[in-house]
Amino acid sequence: MTDGQKAELLPQVPEWRVRAVDGVERLERTFKLPDFAEAVAFTNHVAELAEAEDHHPLIITEWGRVTVQWWTHKIRGLHQNDFIMASKTDQLPRP
Amino acid sequence: MTDGQKAELLPQVPEWRVRAVDGVERLERTFKLPDFAEAVAFTNHVAELAEAEDHHPLIITEWGRVTVQWWTHKIRGLHQNDFIMASKTDQLPRP
Repeated sequence: MTDGQKAELLPQVPEWRVRAVDGVERLERTFKLPDFAEAVAFTNHVAELAEAEDHHPLIITEWGRVTVQWWTHKIRGLHQNDFIMASKTDQLPRP
Repeated sequence: MTDGQKAELLPQVPEWRVRAVDGVERLERTFKLPDFAEAVAFTNHVAELAEAEDHHPLIITEWGRVTVQWWTHKIRGLHQNDFIMASKTDQLPRP
């Protein structure tokens, strides 16, 4: 994706930011949850989405917080599909 | 804990290393798993242990890999209990 394409798609997932890790751009969002059990439950929702779409994020689970990162390993960066996965993640049920 | 106490306990959890994040020491280990689904399953095992002991780690779930970090928020560092949690994490079922 070009920077222009990313700039066009980012406003559609306004809670997400682009974060470079070791030179590889990822879409990242942190979700606040009430406690650890709810964070784990949300992690499992994200995992089910990932398996259904056969596209797998990095998920950081903590007490009261889940951070999700989407990127495309094969291209070492962002693909349009990552923005779609971010949007689908936004639509997952949360308490 | 003193550095001496940590040095005594670390050999009992040899797969774990001490890692400082923002000046706070954490015990960290990365577990290799066969795929994403198994990584998620292991994350849930760690989460169940955490809830049972009422001590909550940070868990990073990825395709084929789960990283667990134990530390004690209240003391902003490592407590003997974190070493016990690390040892219990080692004993959780893995494929």
